[in-house]
Amino acid sequence: MENVKVIIYGLGAMGRGMAEMLLKKKGVEIVGVVGRGKMLGTSMYDYLSVERGDRPDVIISTYDKVITEKAADVVLLCTDSFTKNAFEKIKYCLENKINVISSAEEMSYPKAQEPELAKEIDKIAKENGVTVLGTGINPGLMMDLLVVLLTGACEEVEHITARRVNSLSPFGPAVMEEQGIGLTVDAFKKGIEEGTLAGHVGFCESVNMIADAIGWKLSDKVKQTMEPIVTNVYRKSPYAEVQPGDVAGCAMKGYGYVDGKLKIEMDHPQQIEPELEGVHTGDYIIIKGRPNINMSINPEVPGGIGTIAMCVNMIPHVINARAGLKTMLDLPVPRAIMGDMRELIER
Amino acid sequence: MENVKVIIYGLGAMGRGMAEMLLKKKGVEIVGVVGRGKMLGTSMYDYLSVERGDRPDVIISTYDKVITEKAADVVLLCTDSFTKNAFEKIKYCLENKINVISSAEEMSYPKAQEPELAKEIDKIAKENGVTVLGTGINPGLMMDLLVVLLTGACEEVEHITARRVNSLSPFGPAVMEEQGIGLTVDAFKKGIEEGTLAGHVGFCESVNMIADAIGWKLSDKVKQTMEPIVTNVYRKSPYAEVQPGDVAGCAMKGYGYVDGKLKIEMDHPQQIEPELEGVHTGDYIIIKGRPNINMSINPEVPGGIGTIAMCVNMIPHVINARAGLKTMLDLPVPRAIMGDMRELIER
Repeated sequence: MENVKVIIYGLGAMGRGMAEMLLKKKGVEIVGVVGRGKMLGTSMYDYLSVERGDRPDVIISTYDKVITEKAADVVLLCTDSFTKNAFEKIKYCLENKINVISSAEEMSYPKAQEPELAKEIDKIAKENGVTVLGTGINPGLMMDLLVVLLTGACEEVEHITARRVNSLSPFGPAVMEEQGIGLTVDAFKKGIEEGTLAGHVGFCESVNMIADAIGWKLSDKVKQTMEPIVTNVYRKSPYAEVQPGDVAGCAMKGYGYVDGKLKIEMDHPQQIEPELEGVHTGDYIIIKGRPNINMSINPEVPGGIGTIAMCVNMIPHVINARAGLKTMLDLPVPRAIMGDMRELIER
Repeated sequence: MENVKVIIYGLGAMGRGMAEMLLKKKGVEIVGVVGRGKMLGTSMYDYLSVERGDRPDVIISTYDKVITEKAADVVLLCTDSFTKNAFEKIKYCLENKINVISSAEEMSYPKAQEPELAKEIDKIAKENGVTVLGTGINPGLMMDLLVVLLTGACEEVEHITARRVNSLSPFGPAVMEEQGIGLTVDAFKKGIEEGTLAGHVGFCESVNMIADAIGWKLSDKVKQTMEPIVTNVYRKSPYAEVQPGDVAGCAMKGYGYVDGKLKIEMDHPQQIEPELEGVHTGDYIIIKGRPNINMSINPEVPGGIGTIAMCVNMIPHVINARAGLKTMLDLPVPRAIMGDMRELIER
């Protein structure tokens, strides 16, 4: 049986991690990499500093060279956070009859903020007989799918809180900038006003995913707030340095309402070096219902590895799915792949 | 659109709980109940002490009167723990072209211990264009599906421990007897030797489900041990009373091996009034891998409500699934149903 064939589209931290993970797995091979800038023309193996062995070389190239009709079973698209920015790339892959897994946060539940684009993507996917899924650690698992799964043990649900307290220390300069790490409080507030701080992208997706899954109809738009986490102590991580009184993190909250009543709360404070002020990281889900469920994961499931793993681990489910735009609600539960990936494909 | 139609087969604690839950839900109705003994001929509403309102009456009857061709969309079968005991009942429902959800523990992954019956059930289901699923809180969720889902965030998995520390206090006389509560240590040991103590049924199913899901091939049969939990203090629950030095619970462990190495550990001590000796109940999952994941749910998700909810909440997924024998690995994640059940059915 032939290997499962994968194209990586985008070689940033996520795409790179997925490539490295795939190269350790059985029954799957990377047949193309879409990159940009200086990396073009380089061997993927050299770029990743991984031994090629007797595998055919893979030269990092532009999308039009790599993405050709049925060139792979799936493209892992790791280029964007927003559906509208990822749309043309997704379309191009689908029209070349290749399944797509996108790490774009909004793509985890695109109908939440881009219902028209979501319909269009579904239509193009069906016309071409292929499947699209957006996933990642969050949105995609910790603050939505895992919540949904735990409600499966409930007769009734009255209120849901999902809390993710994580460390940003391992992340690079782009994340530091998006989250406003190291800014003064005034600069942070100005950033919010001017819309230059992205913070976490995904509350609207997670809240809508949960509500739709359990049959709650949201009566209001998902609300969200963003506050600076001001440090009392000096904090330093590989890519940031924060003085006491300045911003060490970004605390976001999200709120979902049903019949005007607050039913879903998202709480996601992200900061560098949380332990320096006694903050322990973790993922928490608190369901009030019948029964109540109180879940904690300590420390938090790390964001980078988690997103990489989720995108790779969903490959067989996406290949096996019926054509169209799918979400994590539609497919079987994600799972690690410790065996031969070919054995998971229904031919 | 017509309501989803359900038949309850077996009105013990589980079947009764499912009936009560269903009567509070929208878009679904109970169209038949299979009972036995004195309850035959009684109205389900009287039996459950629930107001009938303007709903048509449902008289508890025998299986041959209730289970007729396409009499319902699904039968909730709550009669057995073992596949071989449930088999003829499942077959009868399938041949009447009705989907089946079974709470029998072994049915959660019947190929683990009854591969021939599993094949036979799959064949009959396909011939009749209907679906069968076995589910419950454990096996079905806490020590298997939830483990599998969490591995979805892992690049690699090295070892898994699933621990469920629960209280048996709410359970009735049958469970007290199966678990040996109140026995002397000698009588408990004799019970194990003679095979009269069932303990927990499900380790073989849970271990095989996890292994198959993540692609580990078990090299040995699943091993399990059963030890008395001897109390140092006097314990009393509604259905049991235990003197110091006697058995207040049953501690079971299960072991799954891959290439002769221990990879999956199940740890499930069940007892009455655990708090009297400072034991806090909970569900715990410890994954060693990349990353490590440490999950706790405190207190444990209760077994009775959990099983009732899981069986009811899976109804739409089972109706929507392709024909055949399915497991929780094959279907989308379970979720509470707070809306109209009809909206979840793909017609």
